[in-house]
Amino acid sequence: MMKVVLLGSGNVATHLGQALKSAGHQILQVWSRTFENAQQLAVSLDASPISDLESLSEEAEIYIISVSDNAIPAVCAQFPFQDKLIVHTSGTTGLDVFDGHLNRCGVFYPLQTFSKQRAVDFQKVPMLIEGSSTNVTGDLLALAKSLSHKAVILNSEQRKALHVAAVFACNFSNHLYSIASEILSQNKMDFDLIRPLIEETAAKAQTFNPQEVQTGPAVRNDQLTLAKHFEFLKDQPELRKIYQLMSQHIINFYQKS
Amino acid sequence: MMKVVLLGSGNVATHLGQALKSAGHQILQVWSRTFENAQQLAVSLDASPISDLESLSEEAEIYIISVSDNAIPAVCAQFPFQDKLIVHTSGTTGLDVFDGHLNRCGVFYPLQTFSKQRAVDFQKVPMLIEGSSTNVTGDLLALAKSLSHKAVILNSEQRKALHVAAVFACNFSNHLYSIASEILSQNKMDFDLIRPLIEETAAKAQTFNPQEVQTGPAVRNDQLTLAKHFEFLKDQPELRKIYQLMSQHIINFYQKS
Repeated sequence: MMKVVLLGSGNVATHLGQALKSAGHQILQVWSRTFENAQQLAVSLDASPISDLESLSEEAEIYIISVSDNAIPAVCAQFPFQDKLIVHTSGTTGLDVFDGHLNRCGVFYPLQTFSKQRAVDFQKVPMLIEGSSTNVTGDLLALAKSLSHKAVILNSEQRKALHVAAVFACNFSNHLYSIASEILSQNKMDFDLIRPLIEETAAKAQTFNPQEVQTGPAVRNDQLTLAKHFEFLKDQPELRKIYQLMSQHIINFYQKS
Repeated sequence: MMKVVLLGSGNVATHLGQALKSAGHQILQVWSRTFENAQQLAVSLDASPISDLESLSEEAEIYIISVSDNAIPAVCAQFPFQDKLIVHTSGTTGLDVFDGHLNRCGVFYPLQTFSKQRAVDFQKVPMLIEGSSTNVTGDLLALAKSLSHKAVILNSEQRKALHVAAVFACNFSNHLYSIASEILSQNKMDFDLIRPLIEETAAKAQTFNPQEVQTGPAVRNDQLTLAKHFEFLKDQPELRKIYQLMSQHIINFYQKS
C-alpha cells in the first residue's frame, strides 16, 4: 500500500485514482487548478481536495502528475519537495521535464483511452514505466503491478513511439467511426448497422496481425469500387482527401510487402 | 429451405455458403472460374463444383453472385436463365448491373469483414436487401432472416453510402492498426501492447456515439504533443501526411460541433 497524491482531475487522473483506490492504495490529496474539479474527484477517492500547490501534503510516497502535456512543466516548477518520488502519466513527455527533481522521478503511463462516462478494467491496461534510477523503476514497477497484469519498462523514445502508434490505432480509428456515423446519418441509416463491423475488425486484431486480415477495395486494388466511392464523396472534399490518402497508402503498403 | 447456387469462391462466398448450409439451405453448385477454387469450397458445402457457366443447374431457387465487383457484369452477361432469381452480394453495385435479368433480381449484401482464417457469427451480420419487386424483396428478406438477426431493406444509393462508411470504419481502421504495428516493431515493441487499446476503442463505439468518446491530442487541440508527434514522424513522410490530415480533420470537426 502506498500513500499517493494525485495532481490532476481529468480522464486519466480519474481512472487512475479509482484503480489505485481499488488496489488498496491511499489517495491523500487531489490537486487541481480548479477547486471544484479537485473536489469532485477527491470525494470519490476519500481524499482531500486542494487547488494550491503550497498545500501539498509531505506525507505521500508518490506524487502523480496527470495533467495535459503542456501543463506538466508548470506543475513541476512549483513542486516544493526535492526528495520525493514524482511521476507523470504522459506518453509523449520525457523524464527531462522534471529538471530539478531528477533524483527520484519517473513516468507512469497507462496506455488506454479513458472517457469519464465509461468504466475501464484497469487490470488489462498496459502500464509503461520509466524511472530515474533502478530503485525508482523497481518501486514504479511494483505499483504498476498492483494495478495491472501488464507492466513494462520502456525508455522515453519508445514510449513516444508507442503514443504515436496509439494515436493512429485508437484516436484516428475512433474518428473514422465518427466519419462513418456522419455518412450514415446523412443517408438516413442508423449507426447500429455498422457496429458489428467495428467490433469484428477490432476482434480480428486481437488474434491476427492486422496485415493478414486487411479487407476492402484498396487492398484488392479494385479501381472500379474506389472510383465509385470517390464519386460518391464528390461534395465532401475533406472526406475525399482522407479516402484517397488512406486508399493509396493501403495500395502501396501491400504492393511493397 | 432454399436450393442455392453460389457463383464465386472468395471470402464472402465462403462465409455466406457456410452460413446458408448451417441454416439448412441446400447448396447445389459452387461455380468459380478456377475449378480448384470451386472444388475447395464445394467440398465443404456438399455441393458440386463447376467452372463453366453452361453447366449451371436449373434446379436452384436462387443464384448468388459473390465475385469481385468488376467481375459481376461478365457473370451476369453469361447467366443463361431469364426467369430465375439472381442476386449479387456487393455493397457498391446497383441493381442495374442485372440488365437483361431485371425480372427477378436483387442484392443480398452481408456487411462484415470476412477473412478465410476466421469464423464469423453470421447471426450478428447485418444483411442488406434490395429486390426488383415486392415479391423478390420478400423472398430475400426471408432468406436473410434465416441467417441473421438483422435484415434491413436499403436502396442502392443507401447501400453505397453504407459501403463507403464501412470502408472508413473498418478497412481504414484496420490499416491504421497495421501502421501502429509497424511503428511498434520499428521501435522494438510488441503489438500486444496496443491490443487492449484497440479492443476498448471499438467496445466504446458499441454503446456510445464515437463523437462523445473521442480522445487524444487532436481533440484537445494539444499543439505541443501534435508537434512532437510530427517531429517523431520526420523520416516517414507518408505517415506524416496521414497524421496531419487526420489530426486537422479532428480539430475542425470538434471546433464546428
